[in-house]
Amino acid sequence: MDFIGAFCLILVLTTLLGHVCQRIGFPDVVGEILVGMVCGPALLGILQPGDSITLFSDLGVIILMFLGGLGSDLELLKRYSKAALIIASMGVVFPVVVMGAASLLFGFDPMESAFIGVIFSATSVSVSVAVMKSNDLLGTKEGASILGAAVADDVIGVVLLSVMSTLATNSHLDLSGLGIIALEQVAFFAGVLVLVKWVAPLLMYFSTLLRMPFSRSIMAVVICLGVSWVSNLVGLSYAVGAFFAGIAVANSEYREAVQRTIQPIGSVVFIPFFFVGIGLNVTAVHSPRLLVFIAVMTVLGVITKIVGCGLGARIAHFDGKGSMLIGTGMVARGEMALITAQIGFDDHLLDSEYYSTIILVITLVTLLAPIIMNLAISRMKVGVGDTNAAAVDAKDSGEVGNPAGI
Amino acid sequence: MDFIGAFCLILVLTTLLGHVCQRIGFPDVVGEILVGMVCGPALLGILQPGDSITLFSDLGVIILMFLGGLGSDLELLKRYSKAALIIASMGVVFPVVVMGAASLLFGFDPMESAFIGVIFSATSVSVSVAVMKSNDLLGTKEGASILGAAVADDVIGVVLLSVMSTLATNSHLDLSGLGIIALEQVAFFAGVLVLVKWVAPLLMYFSTLLRMPFSRSIMAVVICLGVSWVSNLVGLSYAVGAFFAGIAVANSEYREAVQRTIQPIGSVVFIPFFFVGIGLNVTAVHSPRLLVFIAVMTVLGVITKIVGCGLGARIAHFDGKGSMLIGTGMVARGEMALITAQIGFDDHLLDSEYYSTIILVITLVTLLAPIIMNLAISRMKVGVGDTNAAAVDAKDSGEVGNPAGI
Repeated sequence: MDFIGAFCLILVLTTLLGHVCQRIGFPDVVGEILVGMVCGPALLGILQPGDSITLFSDLGVIILMFLGGLGSDLELLKRYSKAALIIASMGVVFPVVVMGAASLLFGFDPMESAFIGVIFSATSVSVSVAVMKSNDLLGTKEGASILGAAVADDVIGVVLLSVMSTLATNSHLDLSGLGIIALEQVAFFAGVLVLVKWVAPLLMYFSTLLRMPFSRSIMAVVICLGVSWVSNLVGLSYAVGAFFAGIAVANSEYREAVQRTIQPIGSVVFIPFFFVGIGLNVTAVHSPRLLVFIAVMTVLGVITKIVGCGLGARIAHFDGKGSMLIGTGMVARGEMALITAQIGFDDHLLDSEYYSTIILVITLVTLLAPIIMNLAISRMKVGVGDTNAAAVDAKDSGEVGNPAGI
Repeated sequence: MDFIGAFCLILVLTTLLGHVCQRIGFPDVVGEILVGMVCGPALLGILQPGDSITLFSDLGVIILMFLGGLGSDLELLKRYSKAALIIASMGVVFPVVVMGAASLLFGFDPMESAFIGVIFSATSVSVSVAVMKSNDLLGTKEGASILGAAVADDVIGVVLLSVMSTLATNSHLDLSGLGIIALEQVAFFAGVLVLVKWVAPLLMYFSTLLRMPFSRSIMAVVICLGVSWVSNLVGLSYAVGAFFAGIAVANSEYREAVQRTIQPIGSVVFIPFFFVGIGLNVTAVHSPRLLVFIAVMTVLGVITKIVGCGLGARIAHFDGKGSMLIGTGMVARGEMALITAQIGFDDHLLDSEYYSTIILVITLVTLLAPIIMNLAISRMKVGVGDTNAAAVDAKDSGEVGNPAGI
């Protein structure tokens, strides 16, 4: 099948399976990964991972991360900054330590183990947002803290990913070589600061002077691709650059206009390829050791976030039931964990067999998340705490899984 | 340079040069082709035509043709159908006969000559629309007839292209082989009719029931890619299928919603690659014979449309000045001619040297069009004829070069 046919097939299947998953309360992403698993070489073999699919998948990650940055509500993070930061940090430390240690026990080497820990430190709130929305909890301080902590989580995750990916791709370098790369990256992040504060708003304003259709969106894409390209030059992944490019454009007054055009470019064209591509790379897992590993990691994936983030919430003075809700609301892994795993796979940090097990764990944890969260909500039912936080659904509208529709 | 860098560069340069062209009254398309010529192997060599650029360029044609079909106002064509059909037919016959004959005289073989004639039968009204808009002539019956004739022209052009491309790619086949292909194509067009009338509206309605973001736009893209894929299977180009898919979706009630999301996907991502790709394939023309050919064909390209369409307008009872305006309004060639030339190049109907001369002629004619049209307008100044046609700018909003711009 040529690429046009494959493109058509991928859109049909991801939309149908995504719809079915949404109907039964699971994130659509799960359906899209399933399409890749079923149609890929592991089962039917209709779709093969090839150059064009890889190219579209790479652009899918870039747009996904750009939209993530674009949707990161830094204002929200500032307002609930203390609680969010405590919750996010605890939610990173627990998975990294516990799941990293577990991987070591299962015989992974230290580098792989640390990387697996980092993968599971990422949170995807799109599932939690959907659950909270249907229970009218989005405007509560628990809801706002979950959203804020998820943003903080993403930023921490991107920084950890930068470190890991630099170490991974430069394992042959001596200390002075690493020093040069570290310097380049510091320069990159300094450049990002300048971009966010001054350059991006200026470029976005300049674009409004151009007599070309969609000039603002084109400028946003130019910033996104430009920063991604530079971040790749200094040894970071494209995804890291795209995320900060998104934050930079979000800091201009054209955020919504850009979101309105880039969102469909992502959802209709590139992002489905990313999730299908993940499924395509998954191979069947037969080894009993790995099956046990999957079961253990899935349980740990759930527990480390509930305990870590719940504890963080307690430290930030939430009551028991509120802390439980926050803990369960941070369980879902999603795009960020998948992107991290994908980059690890590309950088040969994870070989194909382990990659498949990690993808399966991420998928299982994400499937369990809404079920566990609904349990916590029905347990607390009354006594949600004061609802002094105004409706904070800004984050929601920027979330990839939950846009308003066309 | 990797693809991400090239993508970024292409967007920056096409936007800037497109803007400059618009400022000085030329279509932005000219600027985009120039980017390809200057950066391509012919001059600077920064950009090389490669697999990824070709893939994006192919998708650019598909989206361009889909948007063309989506913007084809069949109602408008019906209202001014008689005049438009006469004008369009005369505007096809004259270039095909005269420019085909001229090509024969220049030593091209009969097949090539006929193909060159077909290339120059296509009209692009985006330039004319811009000129008429700035002179407030869009609502006149001359304006409406130009728009209607351009739609009819596109449909005739697509049919001629189908015939040529079938003959070209099957030159080794005997009569019975061609008969089978003809049968397949008749079946295809019958299928298209069923699609336009019943299937597309049904599919579009079905898409609104899906719980997925952008499900309507995804369905539109699925229809576009699906029909393109089938049209390629029966020996037509992808572009032909995409055009009819656009007409099919336009026939549902979701036309504007689909246009709103597909337009930016085209303008921000794929369409710039198409025009840059054309420039990339252009090589320098040194032969004196070809330089004379370019000069002669440029003059003929202008004259055949003015005479052909002007004569058609006279037959349709327009006065002398009105007919002159209509004739000059049909001079511009654009996307359609470039797409036809590109397909001829891909099908080896035109070799690389002749392809370059044809692209140059199309570009020159398109550059001359607004100048000539402004002359005709200043000559008629008063006496535009009655302005009984209500503002008919529906076609305009669907025109690739002139969307409202985000």
